[in-house]
Amino acid sequence: MGERQISKAVISRLPRYHRYLGELLNSGTERISSGELSRLMKVTASQIRQDLNNFGGFGQQGYGYNVRYLRDEIGKILGLDHDHAMIIIGTGHLGKALANYENFNRGSIHIVGLFDIRKEVIGTKVRNTEIRSVEELPSFLKEHEVEIAVLTLPKKNATEIAQILVENGINAIWNFAYTDLNLQLPEDVIVENVHLSDSLMQLTYRLNAAQQKEEN
Amino acid sequence: MGERQISKAVISRLPRYHRYLGELLNSGTERISSGELSRLMKVTASQIRQDLNNFGGFGQQGYGYNVRYLRDEIGKILGLDHDHAMIIIGTGHLGKALANYENFNRGSIHIVGLFDIRKEVIGTKVRNTEIRSVEELPSFLKEHEVEIAVLTLPKKNATEIAQILVENGINAIWNFAYTDLNLQLPEDVIVENVHLSDSLMQLTYRLNAAQQKEEN
Repeated sequence: MGERQISKAVISRLPRYHRYLGELLNSGTERISSGELSRLMKVTASQIRQDLNNFGGFGQQGYGYNVRYLRDEIGKILGLDHDHAMIIIGTGHLGKALANYENFNRGSIHIVGLFDIRKEVIGTKVRNTEIRSVEELPSFLKEHEVEIAVLTLPKKNATEIAQILVENGINAIWNFAYTDLNLQLPEDVIVENVHLSDSLMQLTYRLNAAQQKEEN
Repeated sequence: MGERQISKAVISRLPRYHRYLGELLNSGTERISSGELSRLMKVTASQIRQDLNNFGGFGQQGYGYNVRYLRDEIGKILGLDHDHAMIIIGTGHLGKALANYENFNRGSIHIVGLFDIRKEVIGTKVRNTEIRSVEELPSFLKEHEVEIAVLTLPKKNATEIAQILVENGINAIWNFAYTDLNLQLPEDVIVENVHLSDSLMQLTYRLNAAQQKEEN
């Protein structure tokens, strides 16, 4: 890859390629042309070729893509060829949903700790992992190599907890709290925000636009 | 808006404007310049002006934006000025997280039904709403006006349930199952996919890219 800057749009499409190639592999497909992949994924073949050319191509003209090779190479680009230790802070329904998510547990991402602020859940377990007090975060992070912290807690606690995490060496946060944390953290901290209501509003936008079109 | 086609990128940014303007309103800010909004949201002022110009502008040169007016107008564009009835199918942790999400319950989106396939949860309640059997979906949808269905269920059941929903008049699906439903549904059904592991992979990509940069 060298020094080339890959656009955000391309990066956002890579996980989808990885997912489709994984499904093809599971169904026993060894080789696929960009045309077939295009029909399956409902994107143009030229988009697929352009996207993959950002990383050197992976295909041979007229011969298509080797599915396993391409899936593995995209996996490497996505950092899935090595393990990532992750902790979850906030074990409400959303935190529990993520702690139970089988796609993480069978992949390269491992949940190594669960934390909460609520006294009544501390000491209970989710999937054999004990829920600890957030007060233990600094010592836990000294003793364990943790790469990613997930924030599934109310907005009002998110900034304070994020700052504790960053002070203790975390530099990747998967944030579900209803705030853009990157405004309060050092520039080099990687924050991926998931704002579920933003996604729902895109749905209501499309509903609204479709209804207005009907009325015209 | 007329017949203008608004780009997906602009639409994806509208909920964030709505969120920031709501926070400004809560903190008592009545008027804001595009420069101030730019610093707050960490996007360029020209991007803000361009985005809002898609809908007619809303600002007066040199006078800034009226926060409440702009928030309400963006709310209208997002379809938030009228109520939307929503049902959730799948009441595992993720379904329960959404059923309990206060941002929905105080806004224009109302959860009117919960459904599950698992006999042991049917008849129990989440937030005063009884969980019904998915077998009741067709009759429920005849008796109630429902606009949006949320799928928080395993991939293996998602397609079948989506087809039942569409046959019974649903044309907007907020899909959390690990599959792109739009491949199996009529073109005019609005599907907003939320693939949480795709989001996590964008985080591991950025981690990986940052580590490679350090090594070079």
